[in-house]
Amino acid sequence: MKFLDELRTLREQINFKGKISDISGYNKLIIAGMGGSGIAGKIFQELYTGMPLFNLDGYHVPDYVDSNTLFIATSYSGNTEETLSSAREAMDRGARVVAITSGGKLASLVKEAIKIPSGIQPRSAMGYLMMPLLNTFMDLDDAVIGRIGDLLWDLDEDNEYIRSEAGKLAADKSIPIVYGHSPFRWVAYRWKTQFNENSKVMAYSNYFPELNHNELVPLKDSYGLDNFRFYIFDGGMDTQTEKRVRFTENSTGIGFHRIPVKGETNIEKIFYLIHYGDYLTYHLALERGIDPTDVSILQDLKRSIARNNE
Amino acid sequence: MKFLDELRTLREQINFKGKISDISGYNKLIIAGMGGSGIAGKIFQELYTGMPLFNLDGYHVPDYVDSNTLFIATSYSGNTEETLSSAREAMDRGARVVAITSGGKLASLVKEAIKIPSGIQPRSAMGYLMMPLLNTFMDLDDAVIGRIGDLLWDLDEDNEYIRSEAGKLAADKSIPIVYGHSPFRWVAYRWKTQFNENSKVMAYSNYFPELNHNELVPLKDSYGLDNFRFYIFDGGMDTQTEKRVRFTENSTGIGFHRIPVKGETNIEKIFYLIHYGDYLTYHLALERGIDPTDVSILQDLKRSIARNNE
Repeated sequence: MKFLDELRTLREQINFKGKISDISGYNKLIIAGMGGSGIAGKIFQELYTGMPLFNLDGYHVPDYVDSNTLFIATSYSGNTEETLSSAREAMDRGARVVAITSGGKLASLVKEAIKIPSGIQPRSAMGYLMMPLLNTFMDLDDAVIGRIGDLLWDLDEDNEYIRSEAGKLAADKSIPIVYGHSPFRWVAYRWKTQFNENSKVMAYSNYFPELNHNELVPLKDSYGLDNFRFYIFDGGMDTQTEKRVRFTENSTGIGFHRIPVKGETNIEKIFYLIHYGDYLTYHLALERGIDPTDVSILQDLKRSIARNNE
Repeated sequence: MKFLDELRTLREQINFKGKISDISGYNKLIIAGMGGSGIAGKIFQELYTGMPLFNLDGYHVPDYVDSNTLFIATSYSGNTEETLSSAREAMDRGARVVAITSGGKLASLVKEAIKIPSGIQPRSAMGYLMMPLLNTFMDLDDAVIGRIGDLLWDLDEDNEYIRSEAGKLAADKSIPIVYGHSPFRWVAYRWKTQFNENSKVMAYSNYFPELNHNELVPLKDSYGLDNFRFYIFDGGMDTQTEKRVRFTENSTGIGFHRIPVKGETNIEKIFYLIHYGDYLTYHLALERGIDPTDVSILQDLKRSIARNNE
């Protein structure tokens, strides 16, 4: 599927109805996943704080995993080495393990799997990976889904204005730095990873208020700042965070590039910002003359490690 | 106190005996803290996984905080706005709130405070902030403390070789990127923040294996990579991580600058790497002709926000 067509499937993905049945009796939640599969759980952790939730992006589970633990293994391909390893460990400890996956070894390993459609890049399957979490743990109004659909539609129909921002990045060969704030901290990280995979451009993210305790200093005094271009999500800030952003700009002289935040609820805003970043990073790939789909080096890595495991 | 003298107090700090008494009856742990105060809890989360642990670096507590929650508020000054806010919320929810602090409003707010010596920069008080966590939750052998002392002593006595690495960063005006791996993920972040505050240099961190799922791509194909200098902690890797690092270097052609990892146990290795980063960032400040102590912009921010709160 062409990359642009992949991006446009997000509008359909938000209607995915899969959910985990009967979550009563568990007192802690682990969502395991790497890269494009793991980002759904990371973003979700700022939306749901009804029980302790740990986002696992490594090979091994914490010591506390037990039979009262609900362990959700997210892997689009179902063949992510780290997630297979941690899911096996969680099963050995008696946790309930549920997979969100399109198939692969993970689907065979677990007793319960929410099967999602295959055929696109993991990082384009954000909706399929996210909706089962939202459907399970949050009361999602149909009206919210409808409004998300409208926001995504608007971006799908007209994103040429985003291309001009991408053009500035490409012309200056700027490294994007994306600053988030709750509940969009991990959306900033999502942008970073999309710059990495779609645009093949180095990028980093950070978040308020934590960055005010350290990164504020070099924003004023570092060498090399001309190589960076700074983005913030302009909306959904509480009063203190607004003050912090204003002080950071005034005291350092750095002009942040402001991304509008549209939507009524946080979930709407999150999907809007995710899709905005999809298009910014897609257009940057085109501006650079690069194929946004191609991440063959990631496949090479998986083959190389698998070969060495034999 | 001169900055170098501050750094040298770490050797004494590791003998700090403060601990939280009677931690039975709690089933989840929150460690709240920002910046130089918060980093202790962040590093600690990879050492202790006996119960769900959440590192809070914001104003508000998760919904699940209740009377079975042990909430540890770490603020060196005791006046960190975010930590005061979250500690108050935790108390309102009936959590047991213990502070690790040198004083300030936090010491007055809570019923239990582990008082640590004042008079140095928060980021130099790493040992005072960390030891109560280690003393409370881990069985620390005196022999381990002794060996940490020896490792720190060696760095204190001879760190001129680290200055040459700092000289390369300064000469090339390189932005340091620090790659960690468990259990040193947050030590990489500590280095990032020390580059920020001591050297006044922009810096970022990331960790294996997660970075292999996204950042690997631009390491091969991005513009602007000449502006960065990449560090890895060369030791304590499992077999899969070693393979990943090797593939990352071979496939991208980027030479990582390897920092030796000394020590027998993970706690020793962590303190060694922390102190190595202290010296690297200190020397980079000197190479740049900059005062490593001065972070007056952070004080300006606090004053500005406090004034606006009135």
